[in-house]
Amino acid sequence: MHNPLNFQSIMLALEHFWAEKGCLIWQPYYSQVGAGTMNPATFLRVLGPEPWNVAYVEPSVRPDDGRYGDNPYRLQQHYQFQVILKPDPGNPQELYLQSLQALGINPLEHDIRFVEDNWESPALGAWGLGWEVWLDGQEITQFTYFQQAGGFNLEPVSVEITYGLERIAMALQGCYNFRKIQWSPDYTYGDVNYQAEKEHSQYYFETANIERVREMFRLYEEEANLALDKGLVLPAHDYILKCSHNFNILDTRGAVGVTERQAMFGRMRDLSRRSAEAYIAQREGLGFPWLQKQTAAHGHNEIPDPQLSLPTHQKADGPTDFLLEIGTEELPAADLENAIQQLEQLVPALLDDTRLEHGEVKVLGTPRRLVVWINSLAPTQADLTQKVKGPPADKAFDKEGAPTPAAIGFARGKGIDVKDLKKEEIDGGVYLMAEVHQTGRSVFETLPEKLAGLTANLRFDKAMRWNASGVAFSRPVRWLVSLFGSQVIPFEYAGLTSGRETRGLRFSEKETTALKDSGEYFSFLESQGILADPQKRKEEIASQVARLQTSIKASPDVDDSLLAEVTNLVEAPTALLGNFNQGHLLLPPEVLVGVMKKHQRYFPVRDNQGKLMAHFITVRNGGSQHLEVVAHGNEEVIEARFADAAFFMQEDNKHTIDDFIPRLDTLIFHPKLGSMLDKTGRIIKLTESLSKQLNLSQEDQSAALEAARFCKADLVTKMVVEMTALQGVIGRYYALKSGKNALAAQAVEEHYYPRYSGDSAPASMPGLVVGLADRLDSLAGLFSVGMAPSGTKDPFGLRRAAIGLVQNLIDKNISMDLQQSLSDASDLLPAPLKPEVMRACSEFITGRFENLLLEEGFKHDVVRAVLAEQAHDPAAAQHAICELTEWTARKDWGEILPSYARCVRITRDLKEVFPLDSGRLLESQEKDLYNAFEKVRTSIGTDVSLGVCLTNFVEMVPVINSFFNTILVMDKDQKVRENRLALLQAIAGLFIGKADFSQLEGF
Amino acid sequence: MHNPLNFQSIMLALEHFWAEKGCLIWQPYYSQVGAGTMNPATFLRVLGPEPWNVAYVEPSVRPDDGRYGDNPYRLQQHYQFQVILKPDPGNPQELYLQSLQALGINPLEHDIRFVEDNWESPALGAWGLGWEVWLDGQEITQFTYFQQAGGFNLEPVSVEITYGLERIAMALQGCYNFRKIQWSPDYTYGDVNYQAEKEHSQYYFETANIERVREMFRLYEEEANLALDKGLVLPAHDYILKCSHNFNILDTRGAVGVTERQAMFGRMRDLSRRSAEAYIAQREGLGFPWLQKQTAAHGHNEIPDPQLSLPTHQKADGPTDFLLEIGTEELPAADLENAIQQLEQLVPALLDDTRLEHGEVKVLGTPRRLVVWINSLAPTQADLTQKVKGPPADKAFDKEGAPTPAAIGFARGKGIDVKDLKKEEIDGGVYLMAEVHQTGRSVFETLPEKLAGLTANLRFDKAMRWNASGVAFSRPVRWLVSLFGSQVIPFEYAGLTSGRETRGLRFSEKETTALKDSGEYFSFLESQGILADPQKRKEEIASQVARLQTSIKASPDVDDSLLAEVTNLVEAPTALLGNFNQGHLLLPPEVLVGVMKKHQRYFPVRDNQGKLMAHFITVRNGGSQHLEVVAHGNEEVIEARFADAAFFMQEDNKHTIDDFIPRLDTLIFHPKLGSMLDKTGRIIKLTESLSKQLNLSQEDQSAALEAARFCKADLVTKMVVEMTALQGVIGRYYALKSGKNALAAQAVEEHYYPRYSGDSAPASMPGLVVGLADRLDSLAGLFSVGMAPSGTKDPFGLRRAAIGLVQNLIDKNISMDLQQSLSDASDLLPAPLKPEVMRACSEFITGRFENLLLEEGFKHDVVRAVLAEQAHDPAAAQHAICELTEWTARKDWGEILPSYARCVRITRDLKEVFPLDSGRLLESQEKDLYNAFEKVRTSIGTDVSLGVCLTNFVEMVPVINSFFNTILVMDKDQKVRENRLALLQAIAGLFIGKADFSQLEGF
Repeated sequence: MHNPLNFQSIMLALEHFWAEKGCLIWQPYYSQVGAGTMNPATFLRVLGPEPWNVAYVEPSVRPDDGRYGDNPYRLQQHYQFQVILKPDPGNPQELYLQSLQALGINPLEHDIRFVEDNWESPALGAWGLGWEVWLDGQEITQFTYFQQAGGFNLEPVSVEITYGLERIAMALQGCYNFRKIQWSPDYTYGDVNYQAEKEHSQYYFETANIERVREMFRLYEEEANLALDKGLVLPAHDYILKCSHNFNILDTRGAVGVTERQAMFGRMRDLSRRSAEAYIAQREGLGFPWLQKQTAAHGHNEIPDPQLSLPTHQKADGPTDFLLEIGTEELPAADLENAIQQLEQLVPALLDDTRLEHGEVKVLGTPRRLVVWINSLAPTQADLTQKVKGPPADKAFDKEGAPTPAAIGFARGKGIDVKDLKKEEIDGGVYLMAEVHQTGRSVFETLPEKLAGLTANLRFDKAMRWNASGVAFSRPVRWLVSLFGSQVIPFEYAGLTSGRETRGLRFSEKETTALKDSGEYFSFLESQGILADPQKRKEEIASQVARLQTSIKASPDVDDSLLAEVTNLVEAPTALLGNFNQGHLLLPPEVLVGVMKKHQRYFPVRDNQGKLMAHFITVRNGGSQHLEVVAHGNEEVIEARFADAAFFMQEDNKHTIDDFIPRLDTLIFHPKLGSMLDKTGRIIKLTESLSKQLNLSQEDQSAALEAARFCKADLVTKMVVEMTALQGVIGRYYALKSGKNALAAQAVEEHYYPRYSGDSAPASMPGLVVGLADRLDSLAGLFSVGMAPSGTKDPFGLRRAAIGLVQNLIDKNISMDLQQSLSDASDLLPAPLKPEVMRACSEFITGRFENLLLEEGFKHDVVRAVLAEQAHDPAAAQHAICELTEWTARKDWGEILPSYARCVRITRDLKEVFPLDSGRLLESQEKDLYNAFEKVRTSIGTDVSLGVCLTNFVEMVPVINSFFNTILVMDKDQKVRENRLALLQAIAGLFIGKADFSQLEGF
Repeated sequence: MHNPLNFQSIMLALEHFWAEKGCLIWQPYYSQVGAGTMNPATFLRVLGPEPWNVAYVEPSVRPDDGRYGDNPYRLQQHYQFQVILKPDPGNPQELYLQSLQALGINPLEHDIRFVEDNWESPALGAWGLGWEVWLDGQEITQFTYFQQAGGFNLEPVSVEITYGLERIAMALQGCYNFRKIQWSPDYTYGDVNYQAEKEHSQYYFETANIERVREMFRLYEEEANLALDKGLVLPAHDYILKCSHNFNILDTRGAVGVTERQAMFGRMRDLSRRSAEAYIAQREGLGFPWLQKQTAAHGHNEIPDPQLSLPTHQKADGPTDFLLEIGTEELPAADLENAIQQLEQLVPALLDDTRLEHGEVKVLGTPRRLVVWINSLAPTQADLTQKVKGPPADKAFDKEGAPTPAAIGFARGKGIDVKDLKKEEIDGGVYLMAEVHQTGRSVFETLPEKLAGLTANLRFDKAMRWNASGVAFSRPVRWLVSLFGSQVIPFEYAGLTSGRETRGLRFSEKETTALKDSGEYFSFLESQGILADPQKRKEEIASQVARLQTSIKASPDVDDSLLAEVTNLVEAPTALLGNFNQGHLLLPPEVLVGVMKKHQRYFPVRDNQGKLMAHFITVRNGGSQHLEVVAHGNEEVIEARFADAAFFMQEDNKHTIDDFIPRLDTLIFHPKLGSMLDKTGRIIKLTESLSKQLNLSQEDQSAALEAARFCKADLVTKMVVEMTALQGVIGRYYALKSGKNALAAQAVEEHYYPRYSGDSAPASMPGLVVGLADRLDSLAGLFSVGMAPSGTKDPFGLRRAAIGLVQNLIDKNISMDLQQSLSDASDLLPAPLKPEVMRACSEFITGRFENLLLEEGFKHDVVRAVLAEQAHDPAAAQHAICELTEWTARKDWGEILPSYARCVRITRDLKEVFPLDSGRLLESQEKDLYNAFEKVRTSIGTDVSLGVCLTNFVEMVPVINSFFNTILVMDKDQKVRENRLALLQAIAGLFIGKADFSQLEGF
């Protein structure tokens, strides 16, 4: 075995590789930058239309990644190798993978994956879509298609490849600590950089003088603006970089509150936008001189002219299997699922539309391909005969019976002879009628346009452009297969023309193959181990995972959502087992699980008691060769990640939970609503009143109040800053660690419940109450400052807050007047809600509640009926809806509702409520009704459910019917009439506060 | 012919080359640095004992080198390639030259030279000795042996090699403008960096906000100190670099006065010292872990143990020619001359001392060798017989006549038998005497130690250490030849042992050769074209230059001092002619000449009218091969230099000379004496009074006053800031350009005359007067604030000022009372001189005057005699000294002086001056003397020269003699006695204010 490259040789080898590929070799920038992206050779050069291919090393400084040299992976300064390919050369992934081979990484021995990772820089006004590249679970590269920079759309799009050189060196050298990387034959990375890690970490975390660093920021910003005023782009850019670095120092020192952060980002973004604008103008002023330059040396970047590339059409004899494959760079899991769903709708519709007979339609997909398979597709459309209406018959022929120009023109237009026109009576008039016969066209004529349209019509949450075709897709489309049996149905999309060439797994023996016919496709995939059918893939993974679990006697649980995601991350799944250090089991299981699932998509492994085991299961893409290498890489990654989590907790544990509370003052909730500390104050007060209102036990009350005090404290801990999803959980751990009441600690975690749709409600009353208080404050507060959700915008998650509020009350079956509670919350705000805003807020909550009920399957009319009267009390309303649902299902409902409806309908438009005087009742039916009503009224009392009301009401139904059958309500005598109306009004009022039956079907 | 490397390939090739040689490849620093030296990989790593070999690219930012991209060579950012070899590997020059070959530079086609250039960084507290490396006249590399950094002595010394990559690329690619350098196959250097040059130049020269940049400096400094307080070396270093860059911006904006500059340097030096100290302590605390590391891979760095390497001695038969060659890296011209002079003294003394007979001794030398050649050196010393005195005879033998222990011990000590001791009378005592015979030892025994001592005893103004031997020499000694005929006389110095191996020209066919015997030496040198004899070399150069001058009909003048320097810059001289653009002849000839001589050591070429021609002559080292390449390189260099001068003048010419005057306020003369503008004010006033005092014509007076106003204005021009030697000259040009009076303009230049020893005096009276005023102000002013020169320290050049003052008065024969003028100057100062300081100042001037006169060859006593009376008036004093010199040479002086001396001697100790009453004269001789005196006195009058006085006095001589022969002065009668003494006192007083003859020999 040859010696692996040392660190300096890796840099040199990459420079050589990319120079060979036509890149200009550039140098690291003379300023502290967080990434090679900030080097003007990237940030500015990606702007405008000129081609640019460049590669360089960039020592990248990220103060908050400092770990005093103690973490094996995380460094305040790491070395990036940055490549920009502008425009997209058409094969950037392949070029990249070649470069790994040039470094001595044998891809057959590893699991190399492109895992969705999008990029955004708020300070640079820039974003792009792409991936992290994983080598055995370790992120070694960021791969991004830039879409915007400085707020400008990028045309052409640039491909950015950012290697993490330490990670690559570790993998090559088989050492999993940066200090051990061999830098040169004589020195390790630790030799030359460990001291720097220690010192800079200390400086950034502990020493830097906040006032001075902030003052520098201000001076830099002014100087940048001054330079821009003079049109000096590069000097300005230098100061923007200095701003950015100083911002990072401030942030690491914990000196930037949420609002200040936004403000500083805004200031930097403004500067970036100005400098981008000035740069583009400058290049334009020079006439974009580089447009003449040769672009990247491999020449894949020319978009062929579809007119020229389409071959002549062919004919087919009979029904044949059709294959459409849209070959892509790795699709994000959600986009893959989404695209399959769309295709399942679109393809049958397309076939109907084109009148092509066909057998079964299958839509399949993997991260690198979307597949449509149509069994026995007819080679031609069915013929079609259509009648077309022409001019009125009396205008079609003159007096001599000869056709008028109108008739002649109509016939010509339809391509038939005037003689063949017929007359027909339509809606009382007589018209000419042409019978048009359309012969079915071949798939070669009809499908090209349709298939192109099908592909173009797929929609994604985030779509990207990549080449001169300008089309947008989830990720670049790189090949298209469209085979009707053995024949290509050529169509054009994204600068590609469909053909018969498909691709298998990267680096496999047959990485690409030309299919003889569509029938070969699945056997080719099978030979590669690719499971194109997501369902089969999921099952295969589940069974592999289960086998591994069994092998170590673990509990056989599999997380469904993770399984679904992992299914969409691989084409050829092979599950494998990895281990980690037992010692990490001392970390909270939520942290371990969070790290494994969120960062690494590993399945955590639990024993039969539900306790985490020091194992994980991951699913590689590819076969079972060299699994031990893949496992080892993954193990090292998770070790480092756990070490990092331990670092955060260790840092946090230098303080008690109480220590964090004052620091909430630096965290702005909303500028007009104050800090999170202010919010905490309001939560405490609301908790206090709600606790009493809901009759909490003394123990619960005091736990709730205690929890309210530090329910938000963990937001300023390092652990939560790093893993936001663990808010509450971490609060609980730290509260317990600080010796707090266990119930209060539990409440801190539970006050966020439910955190997502399907999550459980708080188990404890204190958790419930603090959560209610938190959500009431958020809803009332944010509505009061005009931050109500609108359209798809809901930056503060108020939809979730409203749903949580309602769900918890239902779940605990707690009756509570939301209206009143909102009003209480409003009173605590800096400025209480105006009535119309309060109303809007209530309606917003009701709206969410209604959706919830409808999703649960309740009928629309039932929900409406109850909410009209009880929306303010979700638990009660839910109960009533259940009852009403049952009642409306009764056979006799068709009698009950109408009898009540008669009472309502006759009275509902009255402006006046009449007094009922039982003494004035004349007829017996009238008196009977009164007596029945009185009986019901008294037996209902107040606090009674809708069901009880109805049960009582049912007894009145015959009496009501009899009443209406015999009595004329609208008697001539006003007093008699009004008295009868008063009786009916009273009956109609029986369900006030329970339900508005007029909303029900059949009313 | 193969394609030359492009810019990026040059960097890669150097990285490969030095990695191969065992260097760690490092990256550019993430901060704006003026040079790779400031990268911590140099600045910190050269400290302490640990080995360190590193190489890296460093984009280096020097704001004041910005030329808006218009100069072909000068850039605000250039790319350095930095190499550090620690310790010295023993052959760093050779390694370096190999690296040039690796880049494709064929050394046989070029003139590659090591030209003295020492390096000092006041901000880093660092210095070193070394060279610029010239490639065809173009500086392509700085090569330095670091001696100190951060104020600490470096042990071991580091070799720093700093390539200027643009220069190398230009030479390789044959393009002489940075914009045309091919960076990559597709892009030029101009493509990627021209815009940056333009913008940053504008930012640094015009835009940067001075207050903000200064404020940043302050914040950086505080942050650096804070970091150092916490022991954080690297964070502190980062801020020091930022300080340095901001200082450079301020400087480029012209915002740093002289004192502020010193203060800021001091602040940065303090920081550098602190960080260096902390770094060393840190490494020491770690136990200097890298001491165990392998050092540079070539292994030349071990110092052999001299004990082991010395071969056994040999014998020789008869007188033989001896050769000593001390082979060095290129010696500075002055050191070479100096070393030859020392050897010319030391070698004969050494031979005398060792009693070795010998023929002619020749001392020769070139930049790379010091050579001692001794004809017919005796193989052994002459025998020596010495008498040695022993104990007193009476203590040597006991009563029995047997020798005492004293005698026995003495005899044994001298190695002879007691019997052979003799007795001898010395100074009245009788002693034992041993006659010791010493047989002459062979050269192999005696010379090794002597030769080592000879080498070690050479002294240089600036010496350097380079290897573990710790010896100091002008430049590293790399080989030693010591041949006695065919036999080596081995000695050890600087870790080397002398042998028979010598070296010729680098890259010549026989670069090294082992000499069979000393006789081969000169033929070997001749075969290489090396002229070891400086005199012959000088003559050869002069004749080559003359031939070239003749070839273009130029005037045959050769600048002597330049000729002397050039002689010491080459071993094998070949003169060649180069041309430059005629257009540059529009620049002032002083500028052209200054650039050619100072920067490039070119001989300017003038036509027979004395006008500069667009040619130059330079002398390469080596033969005449590829002279056209060498010439072309040199031509491009001088073009760029002239373009740079034109840039400065063009920038300056945006203003009139008057515009510069107010800016003198930013230039501090001395903190207690104000700015140069304040000084200008004083010069104006002094000029005014001196003009009147010296009776200048009205025209001269007004020209002098005008000149005084702007005599210092050019000090703030870019041209003078760049080429200080042109102060005054540039002032004249700019004054004329601004339409000033020609006489005043001339005075601006001339007020600095004489600028150096041997320079001419001002031609014009205004020039003279302004110069007097300037010097009087400097002398009085700087003495007043305690800045009088002391020891060798004379930072303000007061010695030169005093000499200039005196010389000009003499030259113009202008009588002036310096005492009075100094007092006038003093009155204008912020605080006038105290009397004792005024006296010290006068004495200082007199001291310089006296030296001047002695150097002119006047006799010491004559000078003393006149200066005692007339030092305050140099012109008069000089005149008197000339006269007195003539008089003292007269035959009758032996009579004249004694007769006067008799009058003085009898009276000089009297405390009282007696009144002379001619009526009381008694004797005729007495009366005769009185009459003679009266005649002389009246004929002398006042304002008469010493010569006239003497001519008159001579007539009195016989009368004086007759008086003393007959008259008893000390008569008993007090009145008579006092009257006679009064007469003699009057005669003695005849020369008061002219000379004090008592100082003369023979008085």
